[in-house]
Amino acid sequence: MRGFRERSTVEEALTAALDGIGRLPAEAVAVMEAAGRVLAADVESGVDVPGFRRATMDGYAVRAEDTYGASSYNPIPLHVLGSSMPGGEAPPEIGRGQCLRIMTGAPVPTGADAVLKAEDTVGSEHRIEATAAVPVGRNVGRIGEDVATGDQVLPAGRRLLAQDVALLAAVGHNPVSVVRRPIARIVVSGDELLAPGMSPTGSTIVDSNSPMLAALVERDGGVPQIRSVPDDRQAMIEALGAPGADVIVTAGAASVGSEDRVPVLVGELGELAVHGITMRPSAPTGVGTVDGVRVVILPGNPVACLAAYDFFAGPVVRSLAGRATDWPYRSIERTLSRRLVSQVGRTDYARVVVDGELVEPIAISGSSVLSSVTRATGFVVVPSALEGYSEGTTVTVHCYREAGER
Amino acid sequence: MRGFRERSTVEEALTAALDGIGRLPAEAVAVMEAAGRVLAADVESGVDVPGFRRATMDGYAVRAEDTYGASSYNPIPLHVLGSSMPGGEAPPEIGRGQCLRIMTGAPVPTGADAVLKAEDTVGSEHRIEATAAVPVGRNVGRIGEDVATGDQVLPAGRRLLAQDVALLAAVGHNPVSVVRRPIARIVVSGDELLAPGMSPTGSTIVDSNSPMLAALVERDGGVPQIRSVPDDRQAMIEALGAPGADVIVTAGAASVGSEDRVPVLVGELGELAVHGITMRPSAPTGVGTVDGVRVVILPGNPVACLAAYDFFAGPVVRSLAGRATDWPYRSIERTLSRRLVSQVGRTDYARVVVDGELVEPIAISGSSVLSSVTRATGFVVVPSALEGYSEGTTVTVHCYREAGER
Repeated sequence: MRGFRERSTVEEALTAALDGIGRLPAEAVAVMEAAGRVLAADVESGVDVPGFRRATMDGYAVRAEDTYGASSYNPIPLHVLGSSMPGGEAPPEIGRGQCLRIMTGAPVPTGADAVLKAEDTVGSEHRIEATAAVPVGRNVGRIGEDVATGDQVLPAGRRLLAQDVALLAAVGHNPVSVVRRPIARIVVSGDELLAPGMSPTGSTIVDSNSPMLAALVERDGGVPQIRSVPDDRQAMIEALGAPGADVIVTAGAASVGSEDRVPVLVGELGELAVHGITMRPSAPTGVGTVDGVRVVILPGNPVACLAAYDFFAGPVVRSLAGRATDWPYRSIERTLSRRLVSQVGRTDYARVVVDGELVEPIAISGSSVLSSVTRATGFVVVPSALEGYSEGTTVTVHCYREAGER
Repeated sequence: MRGFRERSTVEEALTAALDGIGRLPAEAVAVMEAAGRVLAADVESGVDVPGFRRATMDGYAVRAEDTYGASSYNPIPLHVLGSSMPGGEAPPEIGRGQCLRIMTGAPVPTGADAVLKAEDTVGSEHRIEATAAVPVGRNVGRIGEDVATGDQVLPAGRRLLAQDVALLAAVGHNPVSVVRRPIARIVVSGDELLAPGMSPTGSTIVDSNSPMLAALVERDGGVPQIRSVPDDRQAMIEALGAPGADVIVTAGAASVGSEDRVPVLVGELGELAVHGITMRPSAPTGVGTVDGVRVVILPGNPVACLAAYDFFAGPVVRSLAGRATDWPYRSIERTLSRRLVSQVGRTDYARVVVDGELVEPIAISGSSVLSSVTRATGFVVVPSALEGYSEGTTVTVHCYREAGER
């Protein structure tokens, strides 16, 4: 039982965590499944959209010059040859003095170069009169107006929005090449831990880190793979060494006590780059690599586990998933209602409650007090160069919840 | 073929869309599946967490008074009775002059009232010397320190964060009562439409609205149920009337042309409260109710469809799901690089590109141009009372993407 040999700064630990980490290779998914995924390559369109001259208004497909001079005082008669419907049969060509009834989205027939609005006509089924002129091209969507063949539709690295998937569908791009979702193995150890869903009794506690880490990994675009292991060297070796993980996140057994096996084992099985950081909470955090897989060693106390995930594991998961490493939290500026105490040489992850224009630090009663992060609106980071922020300082709050959410 | 009888304002249409809509009834889910769901009821803890006096530091469980006066010049001997490990057997009671080796998270034995840090001791396996005094209660987490029996853990309506699920697991709350996810039936019609995944040919186009709407519904906490129907009255009646939907969103066949059956059918089968709104794009939007199920009628042009979903369908889905009706978009303030033209009496959904501190309106080439919403950073709403914004005005941009995303 002794202290950390040499603590790393938050910046050093993050650099170690992200060292050599990049987006995973691509996989193909159906366009209907592509929302939220990250494009692995630029997408160029192989087609024009629309691929035909399309009516953008209900009315009559006409030769524009046939309508020149038309007004309600000078109606010009046109013969209605038939109609052009969306998805219907190819419409007949029209000649001088002829027109076709046409619906929005239907193909404009050969010979026609404009669509006359229905309101600018009077008449019956087979014969109408144009009561206004229409210029060439009016109400006709040109071929490739939305996307032309060869256009770059979306860039590699794009996290696909609803409208992006719509555009990929529109150009017939299917399947879609997206970054594979990283498998994040979550290794939780502790003989005192009951499985989530059980009720705590006696001197046991329920494992709250695996549901928390699973939710964080999913939020960040990863696939959680939970392994709950007993406090047993061989079981931990197996959990750290088994193939199939793109990143390993451990929770618990991270400190320097004799039962704290994870950092020691990571050093034995691979390389332990960082163990012990100048951060509160989360001092026992570590970073290593086993069999080429990055291992982020998180403290077992749930608040420290959350903070260390946010600082070091989240960026790894998001990088592998092809996302930005930035925190997925909304940032707002607020004024401190009272002093926020820290120490020079230590980065603080301070839980705060926002109340209107003010922000109040939560009185911290330990890194095991989960309710401090459920009551908090978010957190303020106090950099290691400062000994805190005085009352009245404007600080950046990283919000756990969206605006308008409870 | 005629215009809308009477257009509704955006506010009237939203009021009609949300009329009588509230969160759906509860369902039970396992705590491991609860992240992202909305709590249906307040949760009170039935237990204390921790449920036992817990060591918050590695060291020795002692009677504090035994250490009074101890220093490195006056070491006080203590007999080590054994050890207390997390999840281990119940530790033996200690008496005067006795102590137990203890690990963080382990139960503090009866008789002990403090944990002496390992660094403040010297000695061997069976006998140590305290080299510092420790006050009563130091390094001991009290029963109920995190959560006490009867405490409200989380309020009804809370959308469960990772740490919320952790806390629910910690107090043994399982299963969790959450708001049922609304089933949003997406009814897409149009004989010109090919299924998503196909390539457009001839005068066909690919249905881009169903993948887009499915992604939007999922984003908003709903379960999409896609029904692609031909331009056929009976098929549309079946799609509107079949049981099993909590909300129906239609796309296409929304205007006032003779082929535009959806508003007419909604009026025949139920009640059509709104058809035609003073908004660009999205004028053909409608709102109705069939068999007690809200029907939001969206235009078929994909940009108009997206805008109308954002304004009217999204709030319904989110309300049913127990979420806030607010847009799930980050809002930022930027300065217009050029004039944004609108019309008094019409609400505009203007797509814009943010470039540093400036924001530029995208030259609009029609509500069918999907690429305008994939190129856009987000949108600016021009209220109906204004005829636009002049260059240099500060406007609010609702961003489709998060900061740092491509």
